[in-house]
Amino acid sequence: MSVFNFSAGPAVMPKPVIEQIQRDLPSLDNSGMSILEISHRSALFQNIIDEAVADLRDLLNIPANYHICFAQGGGTGQFAAVPLNLANNRRHIALLDSGTWAAKAGKEATRLGYQVTTLATTKDGKYRELPRLKQAIPADSFDYLHVTTNNTIEGTAYHTVPESEIPIVADMSSNFLGENYDITNFGLVFAGAQKNLGPAGVTVVIVREDLIQTAEAVPSIFDYQLAIDKGSMLNTPPTFAIYAAGLVLKWIKAEGGVTEMARRNQAKSDKLYDYLDESKLFNAPAFKPDRSYTNVVFSTNNDELDAVLVKEATAAGLMNLKGHRSVGGLRASLYNAMPMAGVDALIDFLYQFEQTHQEA
Amino acid sequence: MSVFNFSAGPAVMPKPVIEQIQRDLPSLDNSGMSILEISHRSALFQNIIDEAVADLRDLLNIPANYHICFAQGGGTGQFAAVPLNLANNRRHIALLDSGTWAAKAGKEATRLGYQVTTLATTKDGKYRELPRLKQAIPADSFDYLHVTTNNTIEGTAYHTVPESEIPIVADMSSNFLGENYDITNFGLVFAGAQKNLGPAGVTVVIVREDLIQTAEAVPSIFDYQLAIDKGSMLNTPPTFAIYAAGLVLKWIKAEGGVTEMARRNQAKSDKLYDYLDESKLFNAPAFKPDRSYTNVVFSTNNDELDAVLVKEATAAGLMNLKGHRSVGGLRASLYNAMPMAGVDALIDFLYQFEQTHQEA
Repeated sequence: MSVFNFSAGPAVMPKPVIEQIQRDLPSLDNSGMSILEISHRSALFQNIIDEAVADLRDLLNIPANYHICFAQGGGTGQFAAVPLNLANNRRHIALLDSGTWAAKAGKEATRLGYQVTTLATTKDGKYRELPRLKQAIPADSFDYLHVTTNNTIEGTAYHTVPESEIPIVADMSSNFLGENYDITNFGLVFAGAQKNLGPAGVTVVIVREDLIQTAEAVPSIFDYQLAIDKGSMLNTPPTFAIYAAGLVLKWIKAEGGVTEMARRNQAKSDKLYDYLDESKLFNAPAFKPDRSYTNVVFSTNNDELDAVLVKEATAAGLMNLKGHRSVGGLRASLYNAMPMAGVDALIDFLYQFEQTHQEA
Repeated sequence: MSVFNFSAGPAVMPKPVIEQIQRDLPSLDNSGMSILEISHRSALFQNIIDEAVADLRDLLNIPANYHICFAQGGGTGQFAAVPLNLANNRRHIALLDSGTWAAKAGKEATRLGYQVTTLATTKDGKYRELPRLKQAIPADSFDYLHVTTNNTIEGTAYHTVPESEIPIVADMSSNFLGENYDITNFGLVFAGAQKNLGPAGVTVVIVREDLIQTAEAVPSIFDYQLAIDKGSMLNTPPTFAIYAAGLVLKWIKAEGGVTEMARRNQAKSDKLYDYLDESKLFNAPAFKPDRSYTNVVFSTNNDELDAVLVKEATAAGLMNLKGHRSVGGLRASLYNAMPMAGVDALIDFLYQFEQTHQEA
C-alpha cells in the first residue's frame, strides 16, 4: 500500500534512507553485524557519530564555540535539562508562551524549583498568533529566554528570531532542519529527532560553550559538560537512532541543504494554505504571517465532519490528518521528507471532499 | 562475512529478529509506513507496546502489583531516577559494592544528595568475588538496598538474591532475561535493553506499586508515577527500540522462555569456563561460585598477548573479545542470542591460540 504520512511525529522519513537502513541491516559495512548489535565503543560507530556531528555542523553552519550532543529523553527531557544546566545564576527564566509545548517547558522549570516569568502570551487567543516581546529584556534579569520556534500543535512559527539581550533557548523540535535559522542567534537549541531528523529516541542539543554552568545535583545523563566531555557517550547512546539521523543528514546535504528544505517546505505549505484560504469548507486559523511551514492546522469547524474526513482520507492513503487531541480539528505535517506530490494528493482529496460535503 | 559477536553491549541479537526487522521495514503490517515513521499514538504502535508489556509480564511472571515501564537514559539514567523516586523517606540507601557499575550507582545517588552506605564491598580483591551481607539490615535503616545482579565488567553474578528485610533495587542490565529470578524478591528491577532485550535506546523498569513515592522536583521523564499513568508515553517513546525489544521477547517465548535461556547460558559459560580452567595459558579470575553466565572474563595475564589474541580473533570472525577498558584482558559475552556454535568456535580458536603461543 502506497501512502502519504502526514503524522506530526514520529513522521515520514526520506524513502532512500529507509531503503538504506533495510539494505544495511544484516551487515553494516560488511562487518557481519547489524547497526543494532555493534558496540558504541567500536571504530564503526565512532565514525557514524563523528560524521553525524560534522554533517550537522556543516548543514547549520554551527560555529566552533557551540557544542553538539546527542541526548535521550526528547524535548520533555530538555525542559528539565536546560534549566538544570543553564539557570543556576538567577534560577529565573523568561518564557514566550506561544503554545502548548512552550507552556509545558515553563511548567517543568517551575516543577524543578525555578522561577518562570511569562513575558508575553497568546493563550487567550488560542495561540492563533505568536506572542511578541513588547520591550527589551533587562540584561541581568533572567538566565535565558525560552522560545518554541515552531508550535507543532497550533501551527505557528517564528520566521524571524525574537530580539533578545539575554540568551535564547530554542525548542526547535518541529522545524529543526526544516527552516533556516542562524544558530548564533541562540544560546542553546534542542530538538527531538522524530520530525525532520529521524526516528524517535534521540535528541540533539546545540549549546554555546560559555553558557554551561557547573551543574550540581543534576542527573549525570542531563549534565551537558559530561555529555560534551564524553562525546555524547557517557553511557550507551541510542546507537540506531544516531545512525538513522546520520543518514537523514546526508540526505539533506545531497538534496541541497537546509535552505533548499526550507524553500520546499514553504512552497508546500503555501500551496496548501492557498487552497484552504480559498475554500469555503475549510478554515486555517493561524495568523497568516505566523503560519508554520511544517505543520498546517485546519478544520471544517465541524467535529463530526472532521472525523469523517480523517476516516475517508485514511481510506485514500492520506494518513494521520487528525489534529492534536488537545485542539481537535485537522493537521497536515509537511516535514522535509514529505514530497510535493503528497501535498497535491491532499489538496485533490480536500477538493473532492469539499465538493461532496459543502452542501451537507 | 559470517561472524560471532561477543560484544558486552550493544550485543548480538537473535538472527530471526534481525530478519523480521528487515522484512517489516518499508511497511509495517502493510500500513505503507515503517516502524520508524508511525505515530506513537497510533493503534499500530499501541498494540506493539501493549504486547511487549504483556509478553514481559508473562516471561518473568510479574505480579499485578508491579508496573512495567519503558524509559530512556539507560542504567545511568536509572541510577538517578531510582533514588529520586524511591529514597525520599530517609534519603539514605544501602549498597552492595560488587563492581564498577554498583559503585557508579552509589556515586550518582551521592551526587544527587542522597546518603549512601556501602554494606559490603569486594573492591580490594578487584571484585573477583561478590560481596555478601554479614548481618541483617535493620528494617527502618535505608530506603532500599542497591544490588547489581550481574557485573558485566568483572564477570560475576548473584545466582541467589541476597536476603534483605528492606526492598532490593536490582540493576539487572546484563543478565535480564538471561538468568531466572523471582521478581517478587525485588522492589524494583531495571535493565538497559542492549544486552538481552534489544537495541540500545530503551530501558525497562519494573517497580512494585507501594514503593513509589510522590516525587517532587524530579524531572518529569524520571517520574515513575507519570510514566505509569501515561503508559510509558508521557512524551514520544523510543518507538523502534520498543518494537525491536517486543520481537526479542516473542523470540524468547518461542524458544522456551527465560528458564531455557538460563539453561543455555549456563551450559555455554560452563563449557567455556571448563576449557579456560584446564588451559595452561588462560586464567578466568572470578571466584567459581560467583561466575557470571553471561559475561566470561579471562586473560593470558599478558597484555601484549591479549592484544594479539583480540587481533587474531577478529580476523577469524570472533568479534569484540577485548575486556572492558577499565580492567583490560579479555571478555566473551554469551547473551541469549549467542548460539553454542559461537562458544565452540571460540574454544577451538583459543585452543589453537594456546598451541601456538604457550611456548612463547
